[in-house]
This record gives sequence, C-alpha cells and structure tokens, in this order.
Amino acid sequence: MSLLVVGSVAFDSIRTPQGDSGRILGGAATYFSLSASFFTQVRVVAVVGDDFTQKEEQVLLNRGVDTSGIVRQPGKSFFWAGEYGENVNEAKTLDTQLGVFASFNPQVPEKFKDSEYLFLANIDPVLQVAVRKQMNGARFVGGDTMNYWINGHRSALGEMLQNVDALLINDSEARLLAQDPSLARAAQKVLDMGPKALVIKHGEYGATVFFRDGAFGIGRHPFRAPTLPIEQVTDPTGAGDSFAGGFMGYIASQSQLTREVFKRAMFYGGVMGSFAVEAFGTERLQKLTKPEIEERYRIFRELTHLE
Amino acid sequence: MSLLVVGSVAFDSIRTPQGDSGRILGGAATYFSLSASFFTQVRVVAVVGDDFTQKEEQVLLNRGVDTSGIVRQPGKSFFWAGEYGENVNEAKTLDTQLGVFASFNPQVPEKFKDSEYLFLANIDPVLQVAVRKQMNGARFVGGDTMNYWINGHRSALGEMLQNVDALLINDSEARLLAQDPSLARAAQKVLDMGPKALVIKHGEYGATVFFRDGAFGIGRHPFRAPTLPIEQVTDPTGAGDSFAGGFMGYIASQSQLTREVFKRAMFYGGVMGSFAVEAFGTERLQKLTKPEIEERYRIFRELTHLE
Repeated sequence: MSLLVVGSVAFDSIRTPQGDSGRILGGAATYFSLSASFFTQVRVVAVVGDDFTQKEEQVLLNRGVDTSGIVRQPGKSFFWAGEYGENVNEAKTLDTQLGVFASFNPQVPEKFKDSEYLFLANIDPVLQVAVRKQMNGARFVGGDTMNYWINGHRSALGEMLQNVDALLINDSEARLLAQDPSLARAAQKVLDMGPKALVIKHGEYGATVFFRDGAFGIGRHPFRAPTLPIEQVTDPTGAGDSFAGGFMGYIASQSQLTREVFKRAMFYGGVMGSFAVEAFGTERLQKLTKPEIEERYRIFRELTHLE
Repeated sequence: MSLLVVGSVAFDSIRTPQGDSGRILGGAATYFSLSASFFTQVRVVAVVGDDFTQKEEQVLLNRGVDTSGIVRQPGKSFFWAGEYGENVNEAKTLDTQLGVFASFNPQVPEKFKDSEYLFLANIDPVLQVAVRKQMNGARFVGGDTMNYWINGHRSALGEMLQNVDALLINDSEARLLAQDPSLARAAQKVLDMGPKALVIKHGEYGATVFFRDGAFGIGRHPFRAPTLPIEQVTDPTGAGDSFAGGFMGYIASQSQLTREVFKRAMFYGGVMGSFAVEAFGTERLQKLTKPEIEERYRIFRELTHLE
C-alpha cells in the first residue's frame, strides 16, 4: 500500500575518517524513500531549488519512487555540510544553508491523499501537524524529530506527538524529550505524550520499540532488534532515516498491524540502517537488491535467536 | 560440574540516586559466586580480613558455595566506596582500601584442582596467570580485567589473554585494549591477542560474543543477547560479575560446549546482570529463585525473537 513521506530532499557534503563525499544527494526524505521503496510504493512531498536536476530525481525514479510531489522553487536546495570523527554517533555541523527549505509549506497533492501510510520526517512540528491534517484517511502515521525542536518548540512538538502512531527517535532525543536519564522511564513518559509506539534507535546497539498499554491490541511488552557489528562505518548520515524507511515500508507492505509485523519491521529497519552506513550518502541504498536485504535479515536473526 | 572463581571478596559502600547502602558485602568473586550458584557447584579462592565474619560467609554458604578456599588474614578486607550519578554506567570511586588484598597470592587448594571450569575475576594479570598454571586440567577458562591493567600492565595482561578461552569485558575496555574506536574492529584485534571468545558487555544494551575463526568448532558469527529495559536501576555494582557468573555457570552446567550453549549462556548472563542491579549489593541475588530466572529468560527471548 502507498506510503507518503514529507521531509527534506537536499544536498550534503560529508567528511568522515574514510574520506570526503563532495556535494552529494541527501535529505531525510531521500534516504527514507529509497529505503522504503524496497517494500512498498513510496510518494514524496518536498521542496527543492534549481540545483536539483534530472540526475538527482533519477535516483528516486530508478527505485520507483513517485517524485511528482517534489516542488521546484527558484533558489538553492537545503544544504548541509558535516563531519564525523572516530565516534560515528556524533556529527559536527560545518555549514547549513536552508535555501528554499526556509519557506517550505508542504501541500499534499490530491492524488496522494489516499496514501494509507504517512511518515513525517524531521521538519518543523507545526508543518508536521499541518500535513497530518491533510491526511485524515491515514491508517498509520510515523514521525521523527530532533533536539532543535525538542529544546525550542516543545508546545508545537506536543501537538505533533498527539498526531503520530509511532515516534522514531534516538537515545539522546528520548532522554531530552522526557527529561529523564533512564531510557526505560523516558520511554514511558514519551508514550504518555501521545504516540502509541515509541521506537528508540540505539545506534550500533540496535533499537527498541515500546508500546502504550493496549496500543494496537498487541500488548505492552517492548521488542528489541539488533544491528550488525560493522567493522567499517563509512558514513553514518541517513542511518536513522533508512531505519525509518525500512520500518514504515515493511509495515505498509502488510495487510494487518500485528505484533509480529511490528517485530519484523524493527528488524527490517535495522537491516536498512546497516546498509546505509556502508558507503557515502545514498550510494549503498541505490545499489541494494532485495536478496541482499533478505540475506541480512537472516543474519540479524542468526545474531540474536536461540534455537 | 565444578566452577572455581578466583577474585575479590570485599566490602563496599555505595551511594546512588536511590540511596546509600552503608557497609555491605561486595567483591567480584562474591557476585560471581552467588550468580553462578544457580547453575552449578561453585568454589571460591579469595583472601579476607578479620572483618569478614560468619554472617558474610553465610551469604555464600546459603547458596551452596564452597568457601573453604577463602583465606583469612589479620587486617582488613578489601574495601571500596563509590558513587553513581544519573548515568549508571559510570562509577566515581570515593575510597579504596586494599587491606589484606594488597598481598593476595592465590593458592588453589588441592581439592579444588579438579574444577573443570575456572573464572579469573578482575585481579592483577600476573596472579591470574599464576592461578591458571595451577589449573592445568581446566576445560574452559574465563577471565575479566579492567582499565587499570590495560593501561599500565599490558605485557602481563598479554600473557593472561593467551591463557583464557573467553575474555569478558565492557565496551570501553575493549576499545582501550584494542586502541580502536570501532567495537567490531576492536573485537577482532582482541581475539588476535589470544582468547577464543570475546564477550563485550554493552551495559543497558546487552552483550555481544565474538569468536575467533574456528574456535570451539562453532563458526565465527557473533551472537548478541539483550538486557531488559529497566526503569529503576538501584545499584549497578556487580552487574558485570553477575553476568559472568550466569555465563560461566550455565556453561559449566552443560556437558558440551556447542554454539547453542554459548548463546544460552549469553542470555543467562544478561538475566543475572539484570537482577543484580535491582537492589543494593548482593541483596537481589540472595533472594533470587530459579523460577524467577527462568521467567526472565523467557521474557528476554520474547523481547528479541521473531516467530
């Protein structure tokens, strides 16, 4: 079934101990779309500038992503330059240029409004809520946010949290949002703010999904999925968005939202995140095949399962 | 089968956000013994002072631990005072008094020399090697160490690493020992130093075992076990030693060392560590029952397993 993502399509320039990417295609919605495209039909709503050419669009089209919701405006696309040191969990921002993204006011095209699954990538929570309200028919809505919105836009974020079924954030964001250093307690506090499910991404340690009591009729026990211990992380950019793409994409591909579907979605999220970091930018996702995904899913299972 | 542990039996005084323990029984060998005692027959070799009374010994005897290898010497037992803040992964040492432990020179009693399983808790690697040499019949040897020995006693530690089958350390110790910030790469480097298996404990994220190629005839794929997301960590002291006790105790209880036994041992390690942190000192381990252990093992499985 159709999955709509609203977020950034952008350019990045990334330096890691493994090298320098130069100016490459990036953006949360880009990583998300490519990742989810292995599971379901994906539609994107975003804004780009004159520098977004046929070449960049072709990357999404090659994966069957519907790009007709990407609006072109005069000016430059969002641009981010960052650097990672030996600690791949921390990016240092070198430059941010909002460009046309500064006035992003996402309008969902009529023909996209029948999308049953919606992902609100990390943008202003006011815009996330506005998009959510254009999509009243959505069966399941996922969302992301970041420290910037948690610190300075708590009231808007509070409304956003009332409007998503699942929130996907990382450890430090969960602790900051709940203002509690205990991850398990923080999870309960965030669930009390609105979402029925909270997926906390632990970077190289995997991810845990926590459920509100009675949510989806599947019980409140958490579930934890691993990632692969990877010897060489080339570029961690987009790992979280690729996780979200695998997670939401798998859910959208299933007719029912059972506990087992949630569990498999967590595994596919981890699988897609683990591929994303193997090369700069979206390079690895562009070359990926479904058999490679299934093979890694099998390895994740082997990594964690008793007989 | 019999499992011998050599290490510290001590007193601790612990402050955490949940309170102050006062002077209580502690020490790596104490936590290890209590934890392992749920799986197999445990024997301890340690040194204590006059302050170690029948009351403390009874804690071990109640769990069927053979305490006849605990040598009493005039003076005080090893004492450690520490404090944990909101980050339960970091202890601040307030006081250390070595006491009789300063001249610890472990001699394995003749009647203990038939122990088939041996655990070298965190002591001077020179002593660990000396104990190992007294136990030539041991089928499987586990060992622990810490930053102090990694930083300042690398050559002695190198010999210790050639003398253990499995090394159990945490993330920061693995990175420090291998001098590599990537955990997966660090694991391979540590395995190159001697041990056939390396168990890296990730605190609240669980633990991963890495194998040397061909070790134990069980393949080199790593295996990851979870811990429970716990809302209230009362006292993290002894979590790692309790993990080691569950891990080694389970292995010692099985007739063969298969991949499946290793995997279950990782789960039991996590289970025992998760219980240890629920109360101050060894309090929770003292009250624990086998059905509680099996129930939590089932929960760990539910937390991580697809259908």
